[in-house]
Amino acid sequence: MAIDYADEVLQGSPRAAARLISWLENGDDRAYPCMEKLYPHTGKSYLIGITGSPGAGKSTLTDKLARAIRKRDLTVGIVAVDPSSPFTGGAVLGDRVRMSELSLDPGVYIRSMATRGFLGGMAQATNDVVKVLDAMGKDVVIIETVGVGQDEVDIIDLADTTCLVLVPGAGDSIQSMKSGVMEIADVFVINKSDRAGADQLASEVSIRVEQDTQIKTRDWTPPVIRTVAVEDQGLEELWEAIENHRQTIQSGDTFIEKRRERTNKETLRMIHNEMFRVIREHLENTGDLDHFVQAILERKKDPYSVMRQVLSNCVFLPQSISKE
Amino acid sequence: MAIDYADEVLQGSPRAAARLISWLENGDDRAYPCMEKLYPHTGKSYLIGITGSPGAGKSTLTDKLARAIRKRDLTVGIVAVDPSSPFTGGAVLGDRVRMSELSLDPGVYIRSMATRGFLGGMAQATNDVVKVLDAMGKDVVIIETVGVGQDEVDIIDLADTTCLVLVPGAGDSIQSMKSGVMEIADVFVINKSDRAGADQLASEVSIRVEQDTQIKTRDWTPPVIRTVAVEDQGLEELWEAIENHRQTIQSGDTFIEKRRERTNKETLRMIHNEMFRVIREHLENTGDLDHFVQAILERKKDPYSVMRQVLSNCVFLPQSISKE
Repeated sequence: MAIDYADEVLQGSPRAAARLISWLENGDDRAYPCMEKLYPHTGKSYLIGITGSPGAGKSTLTDKLARAIRKRDLTVGIVAVDPSSPFTGGAVLGDRVRMSELSLDPGVYIRSMATRGFLGGMAQATNDVVKVLDAMGKDVVIIETVGVGQDEVDIIDLADTTCLVLVPGAGDSIQSMKSGVMEIADVFVINKSDRAGADQLASEVSIRVEQDTQIKTRDWTPPVIRTVAVEDQGLEELWEAIENHRQTIQSGDTFIEKRRERTNKETLRMIHNEMFRVIREHLENTGDLDHFVQAILERKKDPYSVMRQVLSNCVFLPQSISKE
Repeated sequence: MAIDYADEVLQGSPRAAARLISWLENGDDRAYPCMEKLYPHTGKSYLIGITGSPGAGKSTLTDKLARAIRKRDLTVGIVAVDPSSPFTGGAVLGDRVRMSELSLDPGVYIRSMATRGFLGGMAQATNDVVKVLDAMGKDVVIIETVGVGQDEVDIIDLADTTCLVLVPGAGDSIQSMKSGVMEIADVFVINKSDRAGADQLASEVSIRVEQDTQIKTRDWTPPVIRTVAVEDQGLEELWEAIENHRQTIQSGDTFIEKRRERTNKETLRMIHNEMFRVIREHLENTGDLDHFVQAILERKKDPYSVMRQVLSNCVFLPQSISKE
């Protein structure tokens, strides 16, 4: 009889959640049956994304926001993701430890993901971990990204409401942002807003929002909230803004559309990741890969035509079971 | 009759190379026949990787190294890759423009890849671009990564000789490095070595190399080279170190093993990316994806079991053609 943490996770056990996440982290096959059992119980948590440039104070903001949410008797899960840098390490987890008072609260579950051990990329890994916290029964799950890469944009894509955190005077001028970054924000947060330049940054953002029809959707114009997270200022306003956004999207079609789009991406990504393992095993076990590689090294073949050949020998049977 | 840039690229045309790279960037199908034609002519360039933490002066070092190589009448291609940050932009390409005097030299071809438009990820895209420069006849291709993420580690994997650039006093202490980063270096470069702390950093690195049998392979102990790239100091020594490494690996089995490993990865990655494109189209065109997504949203199915079902309906026919 296999160990199965699914039931314990559904009862909210942090210990079972931690073990299941370790399985996911290690690519342990036992994780999948658990995830299949948990899946029907997911989709209930509200997912908040916190992102922004380094030094914007995202982890402090996340912590203070979690406290504000706890005051409303809602339970919170936090997933802090740092996929970016193999060159510098330590600081992120250090921050997390410093804030561990929050983790003494049984209504809060915090998970840092600073490693790259997860199979299938950080977005898939974050998705899996969020599902575990969701199945645990957390009312709100905050996904905090620590780095600033494309990975983070994919990760933040999981959230229902995304907060983009900016700070005055950190070179965070709106002009320097690459296209696509402003557009991910449902709520703009000017953190450390007691600093010089906060007014200017806030008005720059407001003007940009007014001008940009891509940012301002039919239903929702992203507000600009000013916070000083270390001094607990502005968190109530931030939570209200998130609540407003939630109510707006849940009253229209946006919410279900967004979740459909996410399920679509998630399913395709899982097939994509698993397919790589299957193809690799197939080509290695048959010896075809060695054969191809040798021919390519001798310049008798090239990888582009090999790719076409392998694909022409791959057949997709009809997905009959699904149509029952 | 389709336009075909392959012949022009083989004659060294920078214009044809630029157009072909644009096709690759845009996922234009016309790129593949060209790449197939070019492939038999590749594998001749020596590939140097330059990586390291931000602010280490990698692009200046790359430029000065390119000049040192040009003095030996060798031609140079430079691929500068910045996959990391959607939040800050501009600086990288700005640097490149400043150094454009180098690009006036017809023996040098520079290509910046700051976008994420490429299909199949940056490592595959870099690989394709390197092949184009290789087919152009460049004696040396330098792959410079600007960011510091896992993407860069995958990219740098393409190089025959990898230089890891460190700077004194930039928090670049050896202790803070994540595991796996030291191990990628064939040559350590202490740049800006006129700064305080250079001696200490150099000796830290040397001690670590001595201790770590993973870094020090049987055949090669990575040297520590001190440079001040902006003042043109240490570039001759760096080139000599790279040359020594080249001669060492080419005299043993390492070189062919490394290229075999790279061809193996490259072939698998190409098959994987293309197969995903095909299966995605298949699932979308048959309506199976919509069907699955609907069932998942209604919690009648879960993405984990859908993944298993789709893959179990994917059958590989024997690769008979390849065995001829």
